Amino acid sequence: MPKLTDAERDEMLKPLFDTGWRMVDGRDAITKTFEFKNFVEAFGWMTRCAIHAEKLNHHPEWSNVYKTVEVTLSTHDADGLTENDVKLAKRMDKQAG
Amino acid sequence: MPKLTDAERDEMLKPLFDTGWRMVDGRDAITKTFEFKNFVEAFGWMTRCAIHAEKLNHHPEWSNVYKTVEVTLSTHDADGLTENDVKLAKRMDKQAG
Repeated sequence: MPKLTDAERDEMLKPLFDTGWRMVDGRDAITKTFEFKNFVEAFGWMTRCAIHAEKLNHHPEWSNVYKTVEVTLSTHDADGLTENDVKLAKRMDKQAG
Repeated sequence: MPKLTDAERDEMLKPLFDTGWRMVDGRDAITKTFEFKNFVEAFGWMTRCAIHAEKLNHHPEWSNVYKTVEVTLSTHDADGLTENDVKLAKRMDKQAG
């Protein structure tokens, strides 16, 4: 899967930036911090996202401290952002919505 | 819950160090990196640990990248290691065993 082109970035990343995703400094990756009511809500969301990630065969880098989950998405094989990252980001937003 | 005494550390932390836990530099916390066969195995383990953590009402700081999970344990309210950290560390080891 190829890295996103400039045109694709304008089209696909802008809507994600509007929901709170942002570029990682010094890396072709996007990140977002999700906050939930408590640990059960946070981990429940992670579990749903984990199933989606496995189905996409595309996995997040993520960390969890109690009710907070920090996610970073990038495509290792492409050394940068691809459509898979956009897909997973959208699903994560949807599951948190 | 009070911080572990020196005697308790000798007794309770030593067996954890033998299974791969170590002190975090500059912080009264322990950390361990768990490696699994793949993402499903890693997240399955996290799910079992999450249920134990919620039952103990004591939660890890952890991050996951594909088949690797890095865990840090410390007790926020005590500003350091307590028996709860030892309990959760043991359960995490058991679930990975």
